[in-house]
Amino acid sequence: MKLDKFTNRDVLISPLAKIGNNVRIGDRTIIYDNVEIGDNTIICNDCVIGEPLNDYYCDCEHYENPKTVIGFDSLIRSHTIIYAGNTIGNHFQTGHRVTVRENTVFGSHCSLGTLDDIQGRSVFGDYCRLHSNVHVGMHSTLGDFVFVYPYVVFTNDPTPPSNICIGPTVGDFSQIATGSILLPGVNIGKHCLIGAGSTVAKDVPDYYLAVGVPAKVIKDVREILDRESGEAHYPWPYRFSRNMPWETCGFDEWKKENGFEE
Amino acid sequence: MKLDKFTNRDVLISPLAKIGNNVRIGDRTIIYDNVEIGDNTIICNDCVIGEPLNDYYCDCEHYENPKTVIGFDSLIRSHTIIYAGNTIGNHFQTGHRVTVRENTVFGSHCSLGTLDDIQGRSVFGDYCRLHSNVHVGMHSTLGDFVFVYPYVVFTNDPTPPSNICIGPTVGDFSQIATGSILLPGVNIGKHCLIGAGSTVAKDVPDYYLAVGVPAKVIKDVREILDRESGEAHYPWPYRFSRNMPWETCGFDEWKKENGFEE
Amino acid sequence: MKLDKFTNRDVLISPLAKIGNNVRIGDRTIIYDNVEIGDNTIICNDCVIGEPLNDYYCDCEHYENPKTVIGFDSLIRSHTIIYAGNTIGNHFQTGHRVTVRENTVFGSHCSLGTLDDIQGRSVFGDYCRLHSNVHVGMHSTLGDFVFVYPYVVFTNDPTPPSNICIGPTVGDFSQIATGSILLPGVNIGKHCLIGAGSTVAKDVPDYYLAVGVPAKVIKDVREILDRESGEAHYPWPYRFSRNMPWETCGFDEWKKENGFEE
Repeated sequence: MKLDKFTNRDVLISPLAKIGNNVRIGDRTIIYDNVEIGDNTIICNDCVIGEPLNDYYCDCEHYENPKTVIGFDSLIRSHTIIYAGNTIGNHFQTGHRVTVRENTVFGSHCSLGTLDDIQGRSVFGDYCRLHSNVHVGMHSTLGDFVFVYPYVVFTNDPTPPSNICIGPTVGDFSQIATGSILLPGVNIGKHCLIGAGSTVAKDVPDYYLAVGVPAKVIKDVREILDRESGEAHYPWPYRFSRNMPWETCGFDEWKKENGFEE
Repeated sequence: MKLDKFTNRDVLISPLAKIGNNVRIGDRTIIYDNVEIGDNTIICNDCVIGEPLNDYYCDCEHYENPKTVIGFDSLIRSHTIIYAGNTIGNHFQTGHRVTVRENTVFGSHCSLGTLDDIQGRSVFGDYCRLHSNVHVGMHSTLGDFVFVYPYVVFTNDPTPPSNICIGPTVGDFSQIATGSILLPGVNIGKHCLIGAGSTVAKDVPDYYLAVGVPAKVIKDVREILDRESGEAHYPWPYRFSRNMPWETCGFDEWKKENGFEE
Repeated sequence: MKLDKFTNRDVLISPLAKIGNNVRIGDRTIIYDNVEIGDNTIICNDCVIGEPLNDYYCDCEHYENPKTVIGFDSLIRSHTIIYAGNTIGNHFQTGHRVTVRENTVFGSHCSLGTLDDIQGRSVFGDYCRLHSNVHVGMHSTLGDFVFVYPYVVFTNDPTPPSNICIGPTVGDFSQIATGSILLPGVNIGKHCLIGAGSTVAKDVPDYYLAVGVPAKVIKDVREILDRESGEAHYPWPYRFSRNMPWETCGFDEWKKENGFEE
């Protein structure tokens, strides 16, 4: 590249931030107090890391920014805003214009898509992959290897407006397809598939497909066939391994090595 | 904060803008001609206030920017774009990356969520609260205390594409839950609740719950019970008061004092 | 305007970019290697044109940016990110904060709305018009004069997650109304109308209206009447001509002159 992405113009870094080795930071990115960034992480242009919380506007003189951690080997694309008070594992990735509010915990290898809007106070396991424009309301819980497709919304208020805030829970390996709405407090088991455009009001047991408005439990996902091969596609880790930790060894071997129980 | 949010770098303010007392303006924010900003308002970094209308691109030499007013005690978060020609009351708040097109009128104490997209030529009452990623098409009308949840869309063209533009109308205190679509010209009464994921094609009378695709009127909202207490939750102002004007005195007292008739 | 939109602050242009005559470029916009911009095009502030692909992060020293072409007389609004490797016709327009990933081809006179998210590897005909917040997954195909309304999603993976990627195809003149989801590989004919909030799982023949979750083919669009005049509204080009090439001569005359067969 004749014009490199990292030209170090107007980068602002707090003296109270800790930046790891070999970190690259794009133009106009701002890193506020008490942010810690792991080695080899790339933060592109026009990002804000450690955005001060709302209390800042009440009393900026006495405000102290909570600690924000972003793990090593992460890639944060341009115009992303990550609030202070988040704890984010290594190998984290974002698309453009992502927003992550405070007090969320991400495991390792999570990725967020362009325009994702994480409202905070949620917990993500490892290897969660959210595509573009997903909205995760407060107090949501996602297990490991949960994939969420565009325009899915996790809600949390059963009788709006109220002071109740109970987010959905989604178990390991479950897939929430495009445009679905998860209603407050709903429990989706492991290895489930929620069909596109569903509104999920009731719990879904492990290994089930639920579809519709309101979503109905239809059948065991293990009956769903791959469109090309005609073979059973689920549980998907036996058939999809791109960027997954079992990419080279296979899912059975990986489970054995890691003591992972389904 | 060691690194403050307001460092006054690359702020551009038109000589024809009027900025109130004690206004703070974030880095790289641009304020165009004929913008008026009330006292004590905070505009964060990378915002555009008074964005020139499309006519500017046709003839920038003779273009004159219409007047834009933002009231006092407002807080506009980063990357928000507010077009010229808007009239916005006091105590206005936005999340990040909000867009407000021209000729919209907001009452006082309105708040817009991250990524909201207000297409212009609409009217909002007082204390409207839009959560993230709401799209309000042109010629929509919202009463007072209308709350709108993520991914709701207000539409306006009954036979797309056409030259007809008739937005929905929503009455005071009504709640439009996540992912609902309001079809062109639909009238939603006062104190209604539209369930998540609904497509509303027909009018909804005062105090009714409507749900589904297409939405059907199901029951009186006063029959809906709070999940925790088991008591009737609606009309909600008796049970929810955070940041509402009846927060200290109660809803009945507030109605009496303000001559507010439901 | 006392404060002009184009003040040439912090614009970065690669020496390997080719900029046409009379091009205006807004503050802080970045134009990377091998971008070609046609005459009279306007690129507003804070845009990125020719954003380097993911390979850049693996080996930025040897990375070479693929060619990006944007035609003449285009208008790209602020905060838009267009990846390298796109070929975009003339008279292109975008709203704010649009993202276009690599290897997409747009015909002439296409317009994208605020927050549109084009995932790449798709083909758009001429005069496609996407409103706000449309998500087009990879390998989608749109004909000429296809209009897509807010929050529509084009999906492409029939059994998520998998390695199959088959986007929808939409024929000339078809209209995809607000909030619809097009499922992987679905074929929508010419002059169709997909009703708001539909999930389209099956093909729709030419000139048909499909509505619902899942969408059902309801009736011939030529039976749909205009709400004001009571006359048949479709095929719409006889009744809507704003910014269309038949605006002055009428649709029949334009078809004849251009040898356009429906």
